[in-house]
Amino acid sequence: MYRTHTCGELRLEHQGTETTLAGWVQRKRELGGMTFVDLRDRYGITQLVFDENTSSELTDKLKKIGREYVIQATGLVRERSSKNKNIATGDIEIDVKALNVLSASATPPFTIEDESDGGDDIRMKYRYLDLRRNPVRENLVLRSNMAHAIRSYLNEQQFIETETPVLIKSTPEGARDFVVPSRMNEGEFYALPQSPQTFKQLLMVAGFDRYYQIVKCFRDEDLRADRQPEFTQIDCEMAFVEQEDVLNTFEGLTKHLFKTIKNVEVTDFPRMPYSEAIANYGSDKPDTRFEMLINDLTEVVKGKDFKVFDEAEFIGGICATGCAEYTRKQLDALTNWVKRPQIGAKGLVYVKCNEDGTFKSSVDKFYAQEDLQQWAAGCNAQPGDLILVLSGDKSHTLDALGALRLEMGKQLGLMDKNTFKPLWVVDFPLLEWDEETQRHYAMHHPFTAPKPEDIALLDTEPGKVRANAYDLVINGVEIGGGSVRIFDSELQAKMFSLLGFTKEEAEAQFGFLMNAFKFGAPPHAGIAFGFDRLVSLFAGLDTIRDVIAFPKNNAGRDVMIDSPSTISDAQLDELNLRVELKNK
Amino acid sequence: MYRTHTCGELRLEHQGTETTLAGWVQRKRELGGMTFVDLRDRYGITQLVFDENTSSELTDKLKKIGREYVIQATGLVRERSSKNKNIATGDIEIDVKALNVLSASATPPFTIEDESDGGDDIRMKYRYLDLRRNPVRENLVLRSNMAHAIRSYLNEQQFIETETPVLIKSTPEGARDFVVPSRMNEGEFYALPQSPQTFKQLLMVAGFDRYYQIVKCFRDEDLRADRQPEFTQIDCEMAFVEQEDVLNTFEGLTKHLFKTIKNVEVTDFPRMPYSEAIANYGSDKPDTRFEMLINDLTEVVKGKDFKVFDEAEFIGGICATGCAEYTRKQLDALTNWVKRPQIGAKGLVYVKCNEDGTFKSSVDKFYAQEDLQQWAAGCNAQPGDLILVLSGDKSHTLDALGALRLEMGKQLGLMDKNTFKPLWVVDFPLLEWDEETQRHYAMHHPFTAPKPEDIALLDTEPGKVRANAYDLVINGVEIGGGSVRIFDSELQAKMFSLLGFTKEEAEAQFGFLMNAFKFGAPPHAGIAFGFDRLVSLFAGLDTIRDVIAFPKNNAGRDVMIDSPSTISDAQLDELNLRVELKNK
Repeated sequence: MYRTHTCGELRLEHQGTETTLAGWVQRKRELGGMTFVDLRDRYGITQLVFDENTSSELTDKLKKIGREYVIQATGLVRERSSKNKNIATGDIEIDVKALNVLSASATPPFTIEDESDGGDDIRMKYRYLDLRRNPVRENLVLRSNMAHAIRSYLNEQQFIETETPVLIKSTPEGARDFVVPSRMNEGEFYALPQSPQTFKQLLMVAGFDRYYQIVKCFRDEDLRADRQPEFTQIDCEMAFVEQEDVLNTFEGLTKHLFKTIKNVEVTDFPRMPYSEAIANYGSDKPDTRFEMLINDLTEVVKGKDFKVFDEAEFIGGICATGCAEYTRKQLDALTNWVKRPQIGAKGLVYVKCNEDGTFKSSVDKFYAQEDLQQWAAGCNAQPGDLILVLSGDKSHTLDALGALRLEMGKQLGLMDKNTFKPLWVVDFPLLEWDEETQRHYAMHHPFTAPKPEDIALLDTEPGKVRANAYDLVINGVEIGGGSVRIFDSELQAKMFSLLGFTKEEAEAQFGFLMNAFKFGAPPHAGIAFGFDRLVSLFAGLDTIRDVIAFPKNNAGRDVMIDSPSTISDAQLDELNLRVELKNK
Repeated sequence: MYRTHTCGELRLEHQGTETTLAGWVQRKRELGGMTFVDLRDRYGITQLVFDENTSSELTDKLKKIGREYVIQATGLVRERSSKNKNIATGDIEIDVKALNVLSASATPPFTIEDESDGGDDIRMKYRYLDLRRNPVRENLVLRSNMAHAIRSYLNEQQFIETETPVLIKSTPEGARDFVVPSRMNEGEFYALPQSPQTFKQLLMVAGFDRYYQIVKCFRDEDLRADRQPEFTQIDCEMAFVEQEDVLNTFEGLTKHLFKTIKNVEVTDFPRMPYSEAIANYGSDKPDTRFEMLINDLTEVVKGKDFKVFDEAEFIGGICATGCAEYTRKQLDALTNWVKRPQIGAKGLVYVKCNEDGTFKSSVDKFYAQEDLQQWAAGCNAQPGDLILVLSGDKSHTLDALGALRLEMGKQLGLMDKNTFKPLWVVDFPLLEWDEETQRHYAMHHPFTAPKPEDIALLDTEPGKVRANAYDLVINGVEIGGGSVRIFDSELQAKMFSLLGFTKEEAEAQFGFLMNAFKFGAPPHAGIAFGFDRLVSLFAGLDTIRDVIAFPKNNAGRDVMIDSPSTISDAQLDELNLRVELKNK
């Protein structure tokens, strides 16, 4: 060992102890013949004091060291004359007698402090230096602690952590697979798993009863903000359970995490049907930290010769409490905000509910005070409130109102990062219709079971079939999702056919699963949590990148190691591959 | 929930309780108007009893079910008249009143019993059925329990579990990488990690201090027996430590596992220099469950006109205790055994140490009794023992003697699976010379630090430089290996140059690491355990395949899902790739 103690360990009670510390030089300052060095390691910071009278050898060495040098220092622990209450070791300092420079450091490209002066790009290139910063490292420590708490809880609940293969088989459904050419099987490819879905179902067929895994998954998608080509899931499956059993088990896990990691007690998670989430929040991942529900005003506002509303499929409003005093400028800004292409509204109608009981709206020439009174009633608005109304086709208008609601929540400070409002969104549609390809897609995945009472609709109105599928949503973020699975090979075959698979395609892709179902498959259901997202929620961060040790950028590149990169012709040749660039 | 209890849970104290169980039909037998069904789940087996007088509906349902059907049965727990002491629930049975068939089963292709009648290939194809068998599932439960015990121990010791990326960069050194074409970065490839080596070193530079990860690694090698293209490592790294600190930490972990998982106390692990392991055991992974050391007889046997010995670089013998009575047939079999190409010896010389103090050897015409007396002294042989002698060039002869020693250990029953003899092999050579390519290769990897006292030899006799490298060996199996790392960019550059890298190649491949070392790298060292191998050792198995849920066969194929497979032209096109088969 290069040290007897860590830099976060020494206290007044160690006074007089000889100690050897090792770490990085955070700061060095001279003061009348004395030099003070803040020595940093993962565990804390300890002040070293060098007296220039100790020895010339010590003084010479000391002169050479600078920021981020790695040193080893030996001396006696003594009480500080001026204590530092900001750090745990602030009562003591080390009177250094011997110094050993273990490693020199060039000047780092940005400051290694809690607040750094480095931009995103440079910090990514030198990620190993960025990770030295306390807040960055603490996110990773949180991640490690959360992973362990999750495992301990699930092991306690009889779950078996089982590793499923990373080199699997490509499936054309859903997002793109990353593929891996096989050298030993010429012309063939493995694929990296987008999730261990079929394997965990096979483990249920195998009688494992309760499975989990914290596991890397892969998706070759064009990266939107906050997506990574490789990400981590808490992947779980249970046999002989119904939907409520899964919800209760993982509600238990989530509460346990809030309690043990953040010391927060959260209330029982409400179950909200998908249709209600869409109607009230304009989103299938409602942020329920604040109300401001969407109100359907379609019936109330029609028939007053305001053409925009009369022609709209849907008119909805939200009530921003206490915002009647919004200025023209603020209202214009909101109007511009909803007109942005991401939101796509044509315009914004407002009604100010004045304190004196009167109303002032942007459509006063069409609506009398009594009309607006009805709007206010429809939105539960009180004097002092502001009603914001959007119109258009139903689905887009609800989306836009949902986005506007979140924007107002943000502006009004209703989204406190230390308040946590989890809920289960349930009763998702089984299928979604895609206009472009004119076919149904599985809303969750092709293995999701329809609600038994809706199975008859599969043949007649498949779009109306609800699934036994559920999402865990916390503060407007989808943390996890899952479903009860089909465990009957015939129903599974029917689903594949509804999704446009030919019998041959289904057999080639999922034959092994349907085959497995022929040998006694138990009813089963499962869930997967986005672990990166869960950690970032707990860390109070907006991006998952900050909870990943070595993330990739939006082009899927690791700029630190400069990957991906070209490979040699010999490698390509062994793999029976030739690169053919289209743009060269 | 489809059940109120599991099939392993009910005891006499539950008598009279109404219970619902769900599981698989293990066995069904009729006996005078009663039908007995053994119902199985992961937790055990419970006997169900159906009385044909209960209801005709029940009897009708019962008729249809067979082996591996999934059923749900409700009834009262009652005491059995004839108890079964072999199972935990053997005191009770369920008097079934209601039966629900959850899933039918075709006749499984092999019996789902502890001992199956299925061959390897069919069990692999139907792996989900093989996993239903208790001994197979128990291996996976053991694996899960070991992983959790390891994590709990390391977390307790302040290790941070940190996930490193799976999509990294190809490095030409060592074994072949699996590569992953990047769609977004045209013509470029990621590689799958053979180990997270450079990332864990960067985490030390980042000040993480103690890192571990239980992580999948990948090697595209021609698969020898008991290799898998994807395998799992317990990967660890520590900063500010010396070799002994790492050995002590992981000796602690290993002892903890033996204690908590197997309730076995193992003694302190000896440290054995590599040179001693080779000289005494003919192996760098000595099985120390038994002695039978190799004795150097080179000086003793030369000069008696026996040309084979006189011309040999090295002559060595082992003493098989109590084997003087071996028959001609046994000795011929041993001779043939050492002559097999895998061993490659030219012949085998033996000396029987008779009970009467005389000797009988296969080279009696060259050696007098007094000569053989000297051999016996050199091998510590007693009357009744058998000396087996091989000769040739030193390195191959030691190898062959090591193999012969293991064979004799096996024949003599000296390798008890329930005896565990761990040790550390230390002081490995830094480099090994490859005749074929006429260059040095790193014995561990290019980041391993030479022993400080041997650094001077790097320029003059690099083959003699010893490394601060170590292996954990248990019962002749290499369970883990690691080293103290180079943390100085100049020494690292020198290593790369010794290994035949040009400056440009070293920069392109490992520039990020050498760059990182310029910003204050701490001294650090680490280790990686082969987790598959560790579990199979604990399970008493000879192959790692049995502790992997979904292993691949020797051609790297998953025969259950039929992977790898071809991918579509559209997929290839998106990846800018063309397959060019040489043999078509």
